[in-house]
Amino acid sequence: MPMIQITVPAGSLDASKKAEMIRLITDAAVAAEGIPAVRAQTFVQIHEVPDGGWGIAGRAVTLAMMQAALAAH
Amino acid sequence: MPMIQITVPAGSLDASKKAEMIRLITDAAVAAEGIPAVRAQTFVQIHEVPDGGWGIAGRAVTLAMMQAALAAH
Amino acid sequence: MPMIQITVPAGSLDASKKAEMIRLITDAAVAAEGIPAVRAQTFVQIHEVPDGGWGIAGRAVTLAMMQAALAAH
Amino acid sequence: MPMIQITVPAGSLDASKKAEMIRLITDAAVAAEGIPAVRAQTFVQIHEVPDGGWGIAGRAVTLAMMQAALAAH
Amino acid sequence: MPMIQITVPAGSLDASKKAEMIRLITDAAVAAEGIPAVRAQTFVQIHEVPDGGWGIAGRAVTLAMMQAALAAH
Amino acid sequence: MPMIQITVPAGSLDASKKAEMIRLITDAAVAAEGIPAVRAQTFVQIHEVPDGGWGIAGRAVTLAMMQAALAAH
Repeated sequence: MPMIQITVPAGSLDASKKAEMIRLITDAAVAAEGIPAVRAQTFVQIHEVPDGGWGIAGRAVTLAMMQAALAAH
Repeated sequence: MPMIQITVPAGSLDASKKAEMIRLITDAAVAAEGIPAVRAQTFVQIHEVPDGGWGIAGRAVTLAMMQAALAAH
Repeated sequence: MPMIQITVPAGSLDASKKAEMIRLITDAAVAAEGIPAVRAQTFVQIHEVPDGGWGIAGRAVTLAMMQAALAAH
Repeated sequence: MPMIQITVPAGSLDASKKAEMIRLITDAAVAAEGIPAVRAQTFVQIHEVPDGGWGIAGRAVTLAMMQAALAAH
Repeated sequence: MPMIQITVPAGSLDASKKAEMIRLITDAAVAAEGIPAVRAQTFVQIHEVPDGGWGIAGRAVTLAMMQAALAAH
Repeated sequence: MPMIQITVPAGSLDASKKAEMIRLITDAAVAAEGIPAVRAQTFVQIHEVPDGGWGIAGRAVTLAMMQAALAAH
């Protein structure tokens, strides 16, 4: 029965990654509930925050900055 | 006094349908509250989920798929 | 197909008003979409903000303050 | 980097199921992104909708009604 | 520790205003909590509602209408 | 014109801190917009996530755990 709203930076996920995110997250939610029948009523929406609108600790962090930080990591 | 956030697939509603949705949903909220004065403080935002980001039962469902299913229905 | 999240002050709506809000708002959304078949996939959640957590123009407005203002109105 | 807001009916998940939901859904999000480093910046919040505030196809569906329907299923 | 979701009309804030909004709102949240250490875990996302999807008192209010009203104000 | 939804762990803010959060965050939003007239249309809602429903990096983090970590910090 869960409604799952996922917020990501715009451009960070392409269509195939979104499909994978929906599949895997739905599987996870159903497994956590332990009731297979909730699958039909499990909904996922992936919202996108336009670049420049994502703030961490007071700083606007662009997608390019995130990707550079993850690459360096 | 209600804040109403509506999430729809991007491209599923044009400007006139959005205006109609705002009008009708505000009327409905005010009628349900039974207090006409709340109208001035009733806000609606229609968020759009980019195509490919809408999941039902673990599957990414595109706007084209939804429209085909509704047409067949 | 709309997902409708309604945010209201905690305690402002009893069970019967919530049921009425769900009914009327779903009817409104389906009418605005103009596609009766979307009804089955129209979901409403009524979230409650605990008293003291609702701000208008910088002031925390409690449910009692709102009800007094609406009564005076 | 995903922010994941999960909305469930109040009382439908106990503490251990919530912990399991957080664990499994974070694993799923990280796997879908394909970037292990995003785990540290993956946040999940489980919101609860008070009983009577969950609407499906225009009807207020209580937790008891949902559990009965799932049991019958 | 706060997660702050800000919803604004699309096009109402440019990149520099968004960065300023993130900076000032994070400062405000940290000051209100009174715990400097929460800064690292304070996240802001600025969502944009596409033009025509913003309703006030039942009317769809476009960005142009808002800007005209603010200018007249 | 911003709608600001703040999500915090339940019990982390008392009424006076919530009022302070609303005041300061509204001031910040208005200052960032640079248009004093938006104050009247700036709304803040402080949502609370019940204890046990807050996940960081896959772990359910309770309010007690957060407060201990902040104190140690």
